[in-house]
Amino acid sequence: MTIESDNRFDDCERAGVYRAITSRRDVRSQFTATRIPEDVLARLLAAAHHAPSVGFMQPWEFIVIRDERIRREVHSNFEQQNRIAAETYEGDRRLLYEHLKLAGILDAPINLCVTCNKSLARGKGLGRQTMPETPIYSTVCAIQNLWLAARAEGVGVGWVSILDVESLRRSLSIPDHIEPVAYLCLGYVSAFAERPDLEARGWEQRARLADLIHFDQYGETDRDQAGHLLTSLSHDPFIPL
Amino acid sequence: MTIESDNRFDDCERAGVYRAITSRRDVRSQFTATRIPEDVLARLLAAAHHAPSVGFMQPWEFIVIRDERIRREVHSNFEQQNRIAAETYEGDRRLLYEHLKLAGILDAPINLCVTCNKSLARGKGLGRQTMPETPIYSTVCAIQNLWLAARAEGVGVGWVSILDVESLRRSLSIPDHIEPVAYLCLGYVSAFAERPDLEARGWEQRARLADLIHFDQYGETDRDQAGHLLTSLSHDPFIPL
Repeated sequence: MTIESDNRFDDCERAGVYRAITSRRDVRSQFTATRIPEDVLARLLAAAHHAPSVGFMQPWEFIVIRDERIRREVHSNFEQQNRIAAETYEGDRRLLYEHLKLAGILDAPINLCVTCNKSLARGKGLGRQTMPETPIYSTVCAIQNLWLAARAEGVGVGWVSILDVESLRRSLSIPDHIEPVAYLCLGYVSAFAERPDLEARGWEQRARLADLIHFDQYGETDRDQAGHLLTSLSHDPFIPL
Repeated sequence: MTIESDNRFDDCERAGVYRAITSRRDVRSQFTATRIPEDVLARLLAAAHHAPSVGFMQPWEFIVIRDERIRREVHSNFEQQNRIAAETYEGDRRLLYEHLKLAGILDAPINLCVTCNKSLARGKGLGRQTMPETPIYSTVCAIQNLWLAARAEGVGVGWVSILDVESLRRSLSIPDHIEPVAYLCLGYVSAFAERPDLEARGWEQRARLADLIHFDQYGETDRDQAGHLLTSLSHDPFIPL
C-alpha cells in the first residue's frame, strides 16, 4: 500500500462520487411538491460553501426563494425571454424548441439564486489580478458542488438561464455590485432521466471525448493517442464513456 | 419508502460525495512524482465531460500537458506575475504572501489547461441568448467535476490563476476564439491538508455560512432564520458546518 493509494476513497465512496457525476441531470420536469427538509437544504448550502475559491474569497451568496409571488414574477420573466428565444429558430427546430420544457420555476418548491460579489475584500485580491473573472468561477464551483450533493440526496436541480438579468435583479432586489450567476430550481423528483433531456429529445448529441483532448498544444489532437488514453473507459467500473 | 427517497444514494455513496466536497483541497505543495495511470486520467476527463452544459453545448476542451519545456515556460509566466502581485501587498501581508506556495506547475506530473469555445455551434445557442457567459459557466462545472473525482482517486488538483493569459495562449498555441478558463496541476499527493492552506496560514478565514443566506430578496438576511435553517449542521453525519 503506497502513500498515494491511502488517499484514495474506498470503492463504495468512489462509486458515490462517480454516480453523482454521471446521473446528475438538469431537471425541468418531474419535480414533485414534496417539501425539502431543512437538514437537507442545509447540507446542500454547506456543500456549496465548501467550494474552492480564489484567495479563499468565498464570494458566493444564496437567496432562498420560497415566496409564490416572486416565483411568479421570475416565471413571467422566463416566459417572455423564452418566446423571444423561440423566434430565433425556424421550421422543425422551432417546433422542437417549443416542445422542450426549459424551466420548473413554479413546480419546484425552492428556487435558489446564487450570486457573486466580485469586489469583496475577503481573499485580499489574491489570484484575482491576472484573471478578474475568477470570483465568478469560484461561484460556479459552489453551484456544481450543490448540484452533485443534491443528486446524492435525490433532489433535482435545474439551472434556468433564459431570464432577463435586469428584471431578475429587480425581482430579487439584487444591487449593481452583486452578480446573479445562477437561478436554480430545487425539488425532489419522481425520477432522474437516464439521459440528458436535450440528448433524448434530439436537440443535441453527446460529443466524443476523444475529439476534445489535445496534447501539449491546442490543435494537437491525435485520435489514436486520445483513443489509447481512453481505452479503459469501455469497461471502467466507475464511469462509462 | 417514498419515490423520492428511492432516488437518494445509500449512506456510503452519499458519504463519498460529501467527503469529496469537504476534503478536496487546492493543492500547491505535497505533489509526489508518482505517475498518474492512464485509466485514472481517463476517469477524470470523463468526469469533466459529464458536466452540465447550456443547451448540451459541451464547450470544454482539454490540453494535457506533460512536456517539460512547456511547463517551464508556464512556470516562468507564473513567477513573473507572482512577483508583480507580491508588490501590491505591504508589510506583514507582503511577507506572508511571499511565503505562500501558490503553484505546483513543475512538481505535478500533469498540467491540464481547460478551455472553452464560446462560439461553438453545438447546443444551437439554446440558453445562451440572455446569458452569454453560460458556456464559461459550463466549463467551470466540468472543472469542479474533475476536481471532486480527483479527490476520490487520491489525486490532488491545484488551480493556478496567477498567469498572464496572453503568454499562456502563446505557450499553448490557443487561438483567439478559445478561452483558457483554468490551468490545473494534477498529481498524487503525500497528504491532503486538513484545512485550506490559505486558512491554515492565516491569509483568510472561513466565512460564516449563515451570513451568506438571504430570504426571498437580496439583503433580507436574518441571522435567526438562517441559524435555524442550519441548526442540523452542528451534528450532521455527512457534512460539518
